[in-house]
Amino acid sequence: MDAQIRVLYGDTDAMGQAYYGNYLRWFESGRAEWFRSCGMSYRELEEKGVYLPVIEAHCHYRKPAFYDDILTITTSFRFSGPARLRFDYEVSRHANGDSLANGYTVHVCVDRERKVLKPPAFLAQLLGRTEEGD
Amino acid sequence: MDAQIRVLYGDTDAMGQAYYGNYLRWFESGRAEWFRSCGMSYRELEEKGVYLPVIEAHCHYRKPAFYDDILTITTSFRFSGPARLRFDYEVSRHANGDSLANGYTVHVCVDRERKVLKPPAFLAQLLGRTEEGD
Amino acid sequence: MDAQIRVLYGDTDAMGQAYYGNYLRWFESGRAEWFRSCGMSYRELEEKGVYLPVIEAHCHYRKPAFYDDILTITTSFRFSGPARLRFDYEVSRHANGDSLANGYTVHVCVDRERKVLKPPAFLAQLLGRTEEGD
Amino acid sequence: MDAQIRVLYGDTDAMGQAYYGNYLRWFESGRAEWFRSCGMSYRELEEKGVYLPVIEAHCHYRKPAFYDDILTITTSFRFSGPARLRFDYEVSRHANGDSLANGYTVHVCVDRERKVLKPPAFLAQLLGRTEEGD
Repeated sequence: MDAQIRVLYGDTDAMGQAYYGNYLRWFESGRAEWFRSCGMSYRELEEKGVYLPVIEAHCHYRKPAFYDDILTITTSFRFSGPARLRFDYEVSRHANGDSLANGYTVHVCVDRERKVLKPPAFLAQLLGRTEEGD
Repeated sequence: MDAQIRVLYGDTDAMGQAYYGNYLRWFESGRAEWFRSCGMSYRELEEKGVYLPVIEAHCHYRKPAFYDDILTITTSFRFSGPARLRFDYEVSRHANGDSLANGYTVHVCVDRERKVLKPPAFLAQLLGRTEEGD
Repeated sequence: MDAQIRVLYGDTDAMGQAYYGNYLRWFESGRAEWFRSCGMSYRELEEKGVYLPVIEAHCHYRKPAFYDDILTITTSFRFSGPARLRFDYEVSRHANGDSLANGYTVHVCVDRERKVLKPPAFLAQLLGRTEEGD
Repeated sequence: MDAQIRVLYGDTDAMGQAYYGNYLRWFESGRAEWFRSCGMSYRELEEKGVYLPVIEAHCHYRKPAFYDDILTITTSFRFSGPARLRFDYEVSRHANGDSLANGYTVHVCVDRERKVLKPPAFLAQLLGRTEEGD
């Protein structure tokens, strides 16, 4: 259910640690596995005409990740307003459990023409929404 | 003084727009040009033994950037506590001035051994610090 | 006419030099500027329904590129069979003219449905083709 | 023993398929798993003071990889001259076994100061070299 990735040489930078921009990619990995664990991949979601572009991203970097580290990305979800989805992420080093970074992304729900829409019923159900509200 | 970059095919994703993780790279471009315009490149800073790892990053995405767009990254700086540097960025589309995204990064000052230090005098002066505070 | 890019921190790796995968991005930069210098951007080409996916790429790495280096990418073109386009690239360090890498990419011409087609007349003309042949 | 990666949104481009530059990253994944399967990771190799920078890379792209595909990278090794290592890669789609791309990288063996050296005995043994020759 958690995503796991291994830090490549191409993910590191001249400071000898993973470049800060890569964490947003790893958040994406976490999000994708979260959807899969709910029973529907993000790819399937798009095939149904629902897209979830990111409107906000945040990351707090605590400790560096190094080359060849295995990272675990733990993801949780909550609605953030009726049409906004928020995912929270925790990135930790598999070998010793060190928490390296945490952050979040906020998404809106749009159709193929990028018109904002309320999450359709199948998605709301998938996401565990039982009632309106924040 | 502002940084300018052109969106490559490799920066776009299957949604037909620039991938959200790339904005942190573009923030880095903005930051680098900001230092250069102050009279000292970040490379020279490192040669003097001062490193500025990112401890926090945030981006708010307003409008998509597309393939081949020229983007302008406007950067400003302020201290955020005695040993914390904060850069604010605005990413806009050169062709029409559209504001596409804005965000910030927070950095600490460390030496070669990654020990946190107060910004040395030459850096404080470069950054325009006149007195303690925030 | 030549493309110029500056090496970002995000382009470097733990060996302290630019990661080898980035050169293919830089080749793309060179190719884009080559098209622009011919009077039609690759974006316009796609708007006319012509796509040029890469079918082969090669790079020979001679010397490392370092953080903050300005790189010049010099690009040349020739047909490589009636429906194959080949671009050759030379990546050099702007500061001292050092040749860092050279390579090539081979492309086919496809339509929106990815069906291979002979380069349409406007493209053949743009590319300076005067007669069939390799 | 083979490496497996999943194609992220961030790996795709506006053509709706994986960007050509990413394959060199995936080759790196394959190479890393190959070393691990021999009993020594590339990280350990570097800790012993041996580095293997890439001097040549080649990729032949046959079919596109799409978002969320799982890719398998199969890697094989052979010496290519007394001090040159060559890895060959095959990238295939896990779901249907389609071969998507194949390529190779050539490496030299250098020490911490980037001086070219013959592969030390422990490495030659690891790599299965029994006699000199090409």
